[in-house]
Amino acid sequence: MSKTNPGNYFEDFALGQKLPHATPRTVTEGDQALYTALYGSRFALQSSDEFARSLGLPRAPLDDLLAFHVVFGKTVPDVSLNAIANLGYANCVFGAPVYPGDTLSTESVVIGLKENSNGKTGVVYVNSTGVNQRGETVLDYVRWVMVRKRDEASPAPSASVPELPKAVAASDLLIPEGLDFAKFDTMLAGAPHRWGDYEVGEKVDHVDAMTIEEAEHQMATRLYQNTAKVHFNQHVEKEGRFGRRIVYGGHVISLARALTFNGLGNAVKIAAINGGAHTAPSFAGDTIYVWSEVLDKVELPGRSDLGALRLRSIATKDRACADFPDRGEDGRFDPAVVLDLDYTIFMPR
Amino acid sequence: MSKTNPGNYFEDFALGQKLPHATPRTVTEGDQALYTALYGSRFALQSSDEFARSLGLPRAPLDDLLAFHVVFGKTVPDVSLNAIANLGYANCVFGAPVYPGDTLSTESVVIGLKENSNGKTGVVYVNSTGVNQRGETVLDYVRWVMVRKRDEASPAPSASVPELPKAVAASDLLIPEGLDFAKFDTMLAGAPHRWGDYEVGEKVDHVDAMTIEEAEHQMATRLYQNTAKVHFNQHVEKEGRFGRRIVYGGHVISLARALTFNGLGNAVKIAAINGGAHTAPSFAGDTIYVWSEVLDKVELPGRSDLGALRLRSIATKDRACADFPDRGEDGRFDPAVVLDLDYTIFMPR
Amino acid sequence: MSKTNPGNYFEDFALGQKLPHATPRTVTEGDQALYTALYGSRFALQSSDEFARSLGLPRAPLDDLLAFHVVFGKTVPDVSLNAIANLGYANCVFGAPVYPGDTLSTESVVIGLKENSNGKTGVVYVNSTGVNQRGETVLDYVRWVMVRKRDEASPAPSASVPELPKAVAASDLLIPEGLDFAKFDTMLAGAPHRWGDYEVGEKVDHVDAMTIEEAEHQMATRLYQNTAKVHFNQHVEKEGRFGRRIVYGGHVISLARALTFNGLGNAVKIAAINGGAHTAPSFAGDTIYVWSEVLDKVELPGRSDLGALRLRSIATKDRACADFPDRGEDGRFDPAVVLDLDYTIFMPR
Repeated sequence: MSKTNPGNYFEDFALGQKLPHATPRTVTEGDQALYTALYGSRFALQSSDEFARSLGLPRAPLDDLLAFHVVFGKTVPDVSLNAIANLGYANCVFGAPVYPGDTLSTESVVIGLKENSNGKTGVVYVNSTGVNQRGETVLDYVRWVMVRKRDEASPAPSASVPELPKAVAASDLLIPEGLDFAKFDTMLAGAPHRWGDYEVGEKVDHVDAMTIEEAEHQMATRLYQNTAKVHFNQHVEKEGRFGRRIVYGGHVISLARALTFNGLGNAVKIAAINGGAHTAPSFAGDTIYVWSEVLDKVELPGRSDLGALRLRSIATKDRACADFPDRGEDGRFDPAVVLDLDYTIFMPR
Repeated sequence: MSKTNPGNYFEDFALGQKLPHATPRTVTEGDQALYTALYGSRFALQSSDEFARSLGLPRAPLDDLLAFHVVFGKTVPDVSLNAIANLGYANCVFGAPVYPGDTLSTESVVIGLKENSNGKTGVVYVNSTGVNQRGETVLDYVRWVMVRKRDEASPAPSASVPELPKAVAASDLLIPEGLDFAKFDTMLAGAPHRWGDYEVGEKVDHVDAMTIEEAEHQMATRLYQNTAKVHFNQHVEKEGRFGRRIVYGGHVISLARALTFNGLGNAVKIAAINGGAHTAPSFAGDTIYVWSEVLDKVELPGRSDLGALRLRSIATKDRACADFPDRGEDGRFDPAVVLDLDYTIFMPR
Repeated sequence: MSKTNPGNYFEDFALGQKLPHATPRTVTEGDQALYTALYGSRFALQSSDEFARSLGLPRAPLDDLLAFHVVFGKTVPDVSLNAIANLGYANCVFGAPVYPGDTLSTESVVIGLKENSNGKTGVVYVNSTGVNQRGETVLDYVRWVMVRKRDEASPAPSASVPELPKAVAASDLLIPEGLDFAKFDTMLAGAPHRWGDYEVGEKVDHVDAMTIEEAEHQMATRLYQNTAKVHFNQHVEKEGRFGRRIVYGGHVISLARALTFNGLGNAVKIAAINGGAHTAPSFAGDTIYVWSEVLDKVELPGRSDLGALRLRSIATKDRACADFPDRGEDGRFDPAVVLDLDYTIFMPR
């Protein structure tokens, strides 16, 4: 019998099923250095131990999205090896900060199943939780994927689709213990604008851009131990639909986040990802630009030092964002758009 | 007089000669993070401090082959700067695990010399030993290379060819102190199959594949401080036999090892390399696939927690391995084969 | 109002103005591992904690140029975002060694201003100082850049050009506290030649060469959090003067320095950069070669263990340096030359 992992097919999932994922991972200063080299991130909280201490943390945590990618990567062999499409994310809450030396592992629970009318595929909803070595939750999120059936003749499960919030509620945002922005130094952080300086509906073109190289997205994706084949095998992909390896969507999210520094430099901590869509695939050679819109401003109970901004960041390829390319009147995205990410950050007041 | 290192020519080597190598190297979590980014390795013992502690080690050791490449790299300036071909490895035993913070250095002894009948080149056999800062041996191996003579007129030394074992004997394998697989968690390790589940003669196609990029193999080879010119200088290589830079053979070994995870996930520790041949050069753009064959199953005296498997892993380029490409009836390898590696791993029973 | 950083224009600078720069950065073993992977540096002092301790330091410091690039990168958003040309460096003195865990920040003072006769641009001289978390100076240097005016009609400031030394004086060189080369092991360092073995006027062809890849220079430049657009945006640069992204000049300096190991292996510590010019841009695909000339030998008062060499290293692209390409009789550089760096190193006597 084959010793290789065949992955799960749609009929292998059952409502309420627990999926403990393999490959615990100790994250280190080495991972953070690579993250910086891959994206050029400049948010001061993650860049400087001294800055982190001035805000009440013991040292600089890893970039939030580095933790996200490591937690996410573990789910791939069990959840999405036979996936046709990664349909969405929701209700993603960042919990305990992740520090060098922490060991992350991930477990998922199946919270929804719905066979598609074609009888060939179905949608699986999982709630994945990343924890550190002390059992503290560092990340909790839902994603749903379209997965192939092994056997089209197998019966459909009763459909069950979870209700998911459009955005993480303010009361569900977790402020790391000890984090206090009272002494936040905007000069050191590199941007003068505080929470109060942003308006709902305001749009920011982040101006900067970065071109993706094959070696970069491959190194990133392997760093996260995400081994989905489409990112790595040019011998197969050259015969595929695009003729090229597809860049891991999370790589584009991280590039976009790093580029938002120019305009959102004090958005040092991601609190939540409310939803996201990879509206088109990205490839090596694409140059990624970003613009953002402020969707909401959230006051946090009892906190005068920090507030939350709900943002939407739209990334494009090979197209500057001075005119904020978005959905057209027909509801379809400008063809240059590759990412529409709805998320919430903490910023000093 | 020139200040640059001319390297040793065949007549510079003498039987019994000691070659202490330069450039001691402190290896760190940063090196391990790069190793993960370069190969996507997922073996749990090296990935997680917590997993390593559950098996009796103080923390996660570096990947075995990272240690191998660092130890090997130091020998290049003295042994193979004027080499025409890297002919083989044998009797390579992994000793003390290497941890972040260890400082590695290497010494070689010339154990064999044989001039070729053309009078222009000769074969040099060296026994190289890598030690840590406490003087503990981390690696001990033999390799032989074909080296140019400086002066074809210089007399041939009396030929001396060492006797080398076909495989490291079970009694010569070193189990790291404290390592105990009694509590080995195969769910966390990501694969259900234990030592007892493999049969001698069994073949596994590892399915996954990775395409090599120039930036990747250059960064890897520099990380190991291996500065053999053919890997780095396109200005010269474009006029050479292949028109391209040649990928360091060790880079292909590491790619192959990482790809074997899918089918050999519990093979968390390399115990020995019995022999190996780079049967064809690899270049950027090649997509590497792997299959493995179980050559032998070795019970280890007094150990019910772990056993050894002697494996042969065959890597190809731009060719899937479902049909196990190998030597043909004429004794020649399938032209897609680039690596034939014979090695021994420890696996939980 | 735009939230993005417009950078400073010529009329925004005033003599004596202090520019505290953003983004403090904790440097780590991860950064050093990346530096090794990017350049293959083999200088023993930075490679081995044990070697560093044998010379009186607590552990291996980071590569001097890694510290340089991190300190330099912070000045870009305030000094050179609207620069047309990076005109020169001078009087760059390396101070306290930088260790993993140190947090670096940078401040600059405007020490010279001179509008160009075209009325469209001016030259700004800044003295930049990099300090660690204890306030110790790790680097102090002057650079001057040509910056655009925002408004050509704005009046010219009174011209003020600082007097800069041709080379850092021997009495201004800083020997790190505790550093003692009495027990310097040249075998471990990988080169037999000590300070006394070099002659003023001596030229060394470093023989080795390395080809630059896009992913490599982008990762390096982001590691330094230097986000100058020309290095990253192929979508814009393909329409530009060169049709390609331009490699950060510091990347070429680091490549050149690493290549000088073969011929200057005991030059383990950079003491000063006296001056430097990027005589032509470099691009991915260029193969960098280097040769060096000994400009001066400096005895250091009270030190019999070490001496200083003032060197000039000339890097070329796609041209070997056996014949030492340099300025021609017309005073113009050989067209293959990309870098002319004048610096001072410490070497064991």
